Amino acid sequence: MRAIDEITITDAALEQMSSTPNPRLKQVMASLVKHLHAFAREVDLTPEEWLEGIRFLTAVGQKCTEHRQEFILLSDTLGLSSLVNSLHDKRATEAATKSSLLGPFYRQDAPMMKLGDSIISKTPGTEVVFYGRVVNSAGKGIPNALVQIWEPDETGHYDLQKLDPSEMDLRGCFHADAEGRYYFRGLCPLGYMIPMDGPVGDMIRAQRRHGYRPAHIHFVIGAPGYRELVTALYVAGDEHIDSDTVFGVNESLVVPLNKKDPASPLPNLPSIRFDFRLAAAKDQMSGRVGADPSQITSKAGKGA
Amino acid sequence: MRAIDEITITDAALEQMSSTPNPRLKQVMASLVKHLHAFAREVDLTPEEWLEGIRFLTAVGQKCTEHRQEFILLSDTLGLSSLVNSLHDKRATEAATKSSLLGPFYRQDAPMMKLGDSIISKTPGTEVVFYGRVVNSAGKGIPNALVQIWEPDETGHYDLQKLDPSEMDLRGCFHADAEGRYYFRGLCPLGYMIPMDGPVGDMIRAQRRHGYRPAHIHFVIGAPGYRELVTALYVAGDEHIDSDTVFGVNESLVVPLNKKDPASPLPNLPSIRFDFRLAAAKDQMSGRVGADPSQITSKAGKGA
Repeated sequence: MRAIDEITITDAALEQMSSTPNPRLKQVMASLVKHLHAFAREVDLTPEEWLEGIRFLTAVGQKCTEHRQEFILLSDTLGLSSLVNSLHDKRATEAATKSSLLGPFYRQDAPMMKLGDSIISKTPGTEVVFYGRVVNSAGKGIPNALVQIWEPDETGHYDLQKLDPSEMDLRGCFHADAEGRYYFRGLCPLGYMIPMDGPVGDMIRAQRRHGYRPAHIHFVIGAPGYRELVTALYVAGDEHIDSDTVFGVNESLVVPLNKKDPASPLPNLPSIRFDFRLAAAKDQMSGRVGADPSQITSKAGKGA
Repeated sequence: MRAIDEITITDAALEQMSSTPNPRLKQVMASLVKHLHAFAREVDLTPEEWLEGIRFLTAVGQKCTEHRQEFILLSDTLGLSSLVNSLHDKRATEAATKSSLLGPFYRQDAPMMKLGDSIISKTPGTEVVFYGRVVNSAGKGIPNALVQIWEPDETGHYDLQKLDPSEMDLRGCFHADAEGRYYFRGLCPLGYMIPMDGPVGDMIRAQRRHGYRPAHIHFVIGAPGYRELVTALYVAGDEHIDSDTVFGVNESLVVPLNKKDPASPLPNLPSIRFDFRLAAAKDQMSGRVGADPSQITSKAGKGA
């Protein structure tokens, strides 16, 4: 009989998992077990601490609903989501705009609008025009690219946090024109605190982190033949631009708010301008970092 | 501004967590983040795989109830619980019986019984006497030591899996006598499959593991001034003794079933004999590996 101790347990677990027929699942689980065990040995994890971890993860799972994904928030605040984004960007075969976090508030069914429309339907606030082009790696416009946008209101809340899910605000979908140009009106982004009323909020407070995200607006951009781009633009000058609680900011995604902009399609409004560059798709995988929470939690009962 | 990529994200996360006032929490979280990030880099984790992991962990959390702890089951099947037991045993300052898994079916309120009583109240089956002594590291009996026992029925189910929680079967608490001797009657242990109707069962099937635990009976043994011992005895000859799905078996905990045993206090019954050795307590911490699921999940909503 194999003697199991704090060292040999790792090989015992790997051996038992070696029957996994899917080679990628086998590889991922073997690496996970090795690193999980190395962590427990490194800190000499006690039974009491282990139990506290079980309690914490249980609470994270039980906080999830169709419109709240606390495990994504945990991944975001541990830097894992940002890391997965960076690995995804690195696998692109062509230069492209950097990914940023999808976060927990995306939804797939935002209304289709016409270029120049405003995504503000219920919330008063300072209107801004967002404009630019969607281009390929050679800088050529991608006609008809689909641009999906969502942002919080001026109190830092998304519609899903304050409205019945049957209502929407500050979301929209647009098709770029024949040269790949897009423009629409929205609120001037403001920073906000991540949801702090769950176990992840408890963790953030225990770590004395401020919990803020700098001002940003979310984009998902796609076109046939290109890798879907999940990203966000961050407004230069925000006090938390260098300490985002979820590590979403990339310098190349920081944009100035222009008070006057004669090149803007709506020159009477302040503007934010950005050109999004998409890489060619290697395959049919969307490469999306995240998903509509309703897709995750409603499937949750079925397991892995 | 710091440029965040798949390497620098780790230091960025550690820096943000460096404000944690509790030094142990700071140490544990820093090690966790380093190993979690190293895992994601090692396997080049894709957004789709990350999302599958989010879905899986969400399902594990949502499977937990007051009487079912799927995160403990996950920890058990990944070998983490066994590893934490081994680390705990290693910290003892005196030789003691090895720990084994508490598992998800312990409860604190089992009935107090008299030496020689049977823990079988509802389930017919082959009766066995369990007996031996509770001793200190010098082999001296520990008077009045508290011995808590629970075991599954002959179909492999614990009372919590088949009865209303207001009813109990195959559980009991005994005080050892003035020489540390204990004896009681119970069922001859049988092996069984872990609960396979949740996400952990899905994982076990995807890994083509058999899902069985070898025949065993659970013990929690305590006395003032000693480290609480959470362990189990495993019946020699079980076909899964060397491939326990939760890695609980230690060679020193494998015992024979004696068909005839003149030394037994009830010599007409088959017997299992074992002496439990407790180490002196270094402090007031119980060192318990696990807890009553109702304590975990009812507290879950409050977070970490």
